[in-house]
Amino acid sequence: MNASIRVSDDPSVQYLLRLGDTCLIHAQRLAEWCGHAPILEEDIAMTNIALDYIGQARALLTLAGEREGAGHDEDQLAYLREERDYRNLTLVELPRGDFAVAVVRIYLLASLLQLIWEALAGSSDEELAAIAGKAVKEVRYHKQHAGDWVIRLARGTDESARRTQSALDMLWPYFREPFSEDAVDDHAKATGLGPRWADLQDAWLAEIGDTLAEAGLVTPKATRFESTGKFGRHSEHMGYVLADLQHLQRAFPGGVW
Amino acid sequence: MNASIRVSDDPSVQYLLRLGDTCLIHAQRLAEWCGHAPILEEDIAMTNIALDYIGQARALLTLAGEREGAGHDEDQLAYLREERDYRNLTLVELPRGDFAVAVVRIYLLASLLQLIWEALAGSSDEELAAIAGKAVKEVRYHKQHAGDWVIRLARGTDESARRTQSALDMLWPYFREPFSEDAVDDHAKATGLGPRWADLQDAWLAEIGDTLAEAGLVTPKATRFESTGKFGRHSEHMGYVLADLQHLQRAFPGGVW
Repeated sequence: MNASIRVSDDPSVQYLLRLGDTCLIHAQRLAEWCGHAPILEEDIAMTNIALDYIGQARALLTLAGEREGAGHDEDQLAYLREERDYRNLTLVELPRGDFAVAVVRIYLLASLLQLIWEALAGSSDEELAAIAGKAVKEVRYHKQHAGDWVIRLARGTDESARRTQSALDMLWPYFREPFSEDAVDDHAKATGLGPRWADLQDAWLAEIGDTLAEAGLVTPKATRFESTGKFGRHSEHMGYVLADLQHLQRAFPGGVW
Repeated sequence: MNASIRVSDDPSVQYLLRLGDTCLIHAQRLAEWCGHAPILEEDIAMTNIALDYIGQARALLTLAGEREGAGHDEDQLAYLREERDYRNLTLVELPRGDFAVAVVRIYLLASLLQLIWEALAGSSDEELAAIAGKAVKEVRYHKQHAGDWVIRLARGTDESARRTQSALDMLWPYFREPFSEDAVDDHAKATGLGPRWADLQDAWLAEIGDTLAEAGLVTPKATRFESTGKFGRHSEHMGYVLADLQHLQRAFPGGVW
């Protein structure tokens, strides 16, 4: 018996899942910081950022379930899929790393999400446009907050500078994935559902360029590596994320608070 | 809905589960070493030791299910209980640590298990006695193999000596738990099912004393701390162990190879 649900291949649903799953898994990793951040204020900030992404994931997965029309609710979509049916970007499933990895990842991703949400505010799907209107304010704050930390760390001590550059070097290759073109993106643009993420790459590079320059960080060279989480082919870390994420709902099927 | 099974409070069943769960969770942690041991031969040795403990766990959980009489098989008992129904010693659920932690833990526990299995060879339960006859040969080898490593590391470089002593210091307080007395142990002795583990403490201390002395390791001072895994009250690490251990069976209920 397979207790997992299967999800439609419909490109609009897949488009929503990419964004929703990226928020969900990002939140799951960020939540690992709860109680572990270097200062109390930042501990609370990280947890609040995680909660924002859980909120965005909930809205997106609920909408994906509605658009799919198979009766799947947010909980079923969050907890009861198999690994290959999750469509998040690989970069959010990577281990939480040190604090530098955390703030660099939040910063780079929020900078991209801001562009995505801004474009989605004009979506042909009015519900999605409404979700975008709220979410863009949140990610703008995440970008600002994490961006300040990137600069502070990169211009801090020798060790914090070294770690921040290492974090950027480690994460950078995973930021090719969002911009690789494919039919799901094309369909979203053609139907007015949302932007092709590939079309946002130049704006994203311009957006982060100033911060990285102010931080004195060296933008890593491009590599041939390209991760494939948005197509459902994940890193070896994803199974462990899902084991934690799904455990309660798998042990108590249909359980609610 | 709760997809977990509940297990009998019968003291004989509990006695079997303590030993079986200790083998099961020990194996689960040891298996994390697969592909990570410092040399290839040791990688294979660690994996084989883990497999031995899985074999012992299978035999014990199968027997516990039979003696319970509720129709639970080894897989249900291994995968479908809630955390508080696992009866393993806390010491096996602690994170895998470094290689010194691994060999010290294997050594200290195998030294105890050898005494337990030797006594169980005379159990009033003939099936248990038969299991013990096979298991004792395995743990005798584990004790020898890991004991050699303890001595080698403790008398190796400054760093390996330091790490081995640290491993002993970290693990030692958890070795009070096996010897704390309680009704389950008393019942086992009264019925001839098996030894009171508390009665084995002196023999265990004598057994390990020579090796620790040869290794030049300092036996840590006793503390007031006492872990309580065998009563079902586990450390914060247990939930993560179970999330990994149970995930496949929770996602595919009743799944078999």
